Amino acid sequence: MAAPQAWREWADRDAIARVLIDYCDALDRMELERIAALFTPDAVVAYGPAEHLCTTGGGEAVAAALARLWRFTRTSHHLSNIAIDFDGPDRADARSYVIAWHERPDGSTATLYGQYADRLVRSGGRWLIASRTQFMNGSDEGFKVALHPLSRRPAPPGWTAPEGIETKR
Amino acid sequence: MAAPQAWREWADRDAIARVLIDYCDALDRMELERIAALFTPDAVVAYGPAEHLCTTGGGEAVAAALARLWRFTRTSHHLSNIAIDFDGPDRADARSYVIAWHERPDGSTATLYGQYADRLVRSGGRWLIASRTQFMNGSDEGFKVALHPLSRRPAPPGWTAPEGIETKR
Amino acid sequence: MAAPQAWREWADRDAIARVLIDYCDALDRMELERIAALFTPDAVVAYGPAEHLCTTGGGEAVAAALARLWRFTRTSHHLSNIAIDFDGPDRADARSYVIAWHERPDGSTATLYGQYADRLVRSGGRWLIASRTQFMNGSDEGFKVALHPLSRRPAPPGWTAPEGIETKR
Repeated sequence: MAAPQAWREWADRDAIARVLIDYCDALDRMELERIAALFTPDAVVAYGPAEHLCTTGGGEAVAAALARLWRFTRTSHHLSNIAIDFDGPDRADARSYVIAWHERPDGSTATLYGQYADRLVRSGGRWLIASRTQFMNGSDEGFKVALHPLSRRPAPPGWTAPEGIETKR
Repeated sequence: MAAPQAWREWADRDAIARVLIDYCDALDRMELERIAALFTPDAVVAYGPAEHLCTTGGGEAVAAALARLWRFTRTSHHLSNIAIDFDGPDRADARSYVIAWHERPDGSTATLYGQYADRLVRSGGRWLIASRTQFMNGSDEGFKVALHPLSRRPAPPGWTAPEGIETKR
Repeated sequence: MAAPQAWREWADRDAIARVLIDYCDALDRMELERIAALFTPDAVVAYGPAEHLCTTGGGEAVAAALARLWRFTRTSHHLSNIAIDFDGPDRADARSYVIAWHERPDGSTATLYGQYADRLVRSGGRWLIASRTQFMNGSDEGFKVALHPLSRRPAPPGWTAPEGIETKR
């Protein structure tokens, strides 16, 4: 890796990770104007395949849609497994994992184990999310929103589980 | 960003993240002398607003207070969303998220979804925590310690939840 | 830290973290050939002390063994707390934390709060896992595999829990 390119990419990786982290913090605080500022003006977001889970109007529309999280009393979005790939000096794809915990006014909870697939672009010197698609690896029973399921390869025909793996401690 | 400053900050970000990570590992192993070494001699820590959740005596006092985690049989502290801001070559603020899982002798568990707000200083060539405040985004029912609640903006007056978001998969 | 060494290590830290992250993503998608490519040909993996939880045949054997995760319908491996130490230009130890969520066909779940202790080597310009040992900080009741328990120091003789810590919010 040539030094100047590496130099730029390290700063960019930090900056992109920070955008993803700020999204979580702003969402858990419901500071929606901070959410709006993290997306491009034409950003497209699809939390799931249903129309009411998609927005096409950029950061303002994303922030307006996320007002729906006020149906919860508390939330916590734990981001990890951040993987960033550049395809040019000003464009990158980022994948990350999230554990998203939500609590309702009745005390019931909904927990998502999911992923974000993001497209980021540098605009005016800042990295912004141009598109975001959310996937669901899994969830607890309390989570009821129909997100995109993560693609998982099925077992080959005839596969049977080995015995003796799950032995009580 | 000027190169020399960036150079220093990358090394410093790694070093600061490592301090926060080592705290978790040392705590889950109850190697309390490792905890003590991560704080300044005058460090102040407030896990919650109550007096018995605050310590003002530096790393030794923090380590002594955390002996209370022996009431659990096992713990696991998963740190993520690390965001670091410098305000000088030797001073930084760090925010991070933690999922803190605890198990009691009776098998019951307590899980916290929280944040750490840390002040770090470079001292003798090493980054140390000078102050730490813990916040609670949320928790399961088993978690009973009164931490600082995370500030969350309430819904505007008259806001009503949209219908049809939580549709069964 | 001398600049050239730091330069190399930053690129290497990113590359090593990416190997650990790719393992999680490949596992959750059950793209086992991607798993195989992350390990050396002589890699040794011990998820637990029992013989059936150990493999010694390199990446292909690891991938073959992990076919057992098809007994679950969905999984999600959330990696955090990544700490990397180099002991030479081409060798490193990595510790990381994982929350591993698994769902069975009957809807029951198993959640592990654990750690990976990995040995990585640079081979042919790529970082590969040469050995992996998994440890269990804890788990929920549904998790039944006997992993290595994390070492945790016991309370000193005569220690008693302080009163008043767990006060209802």
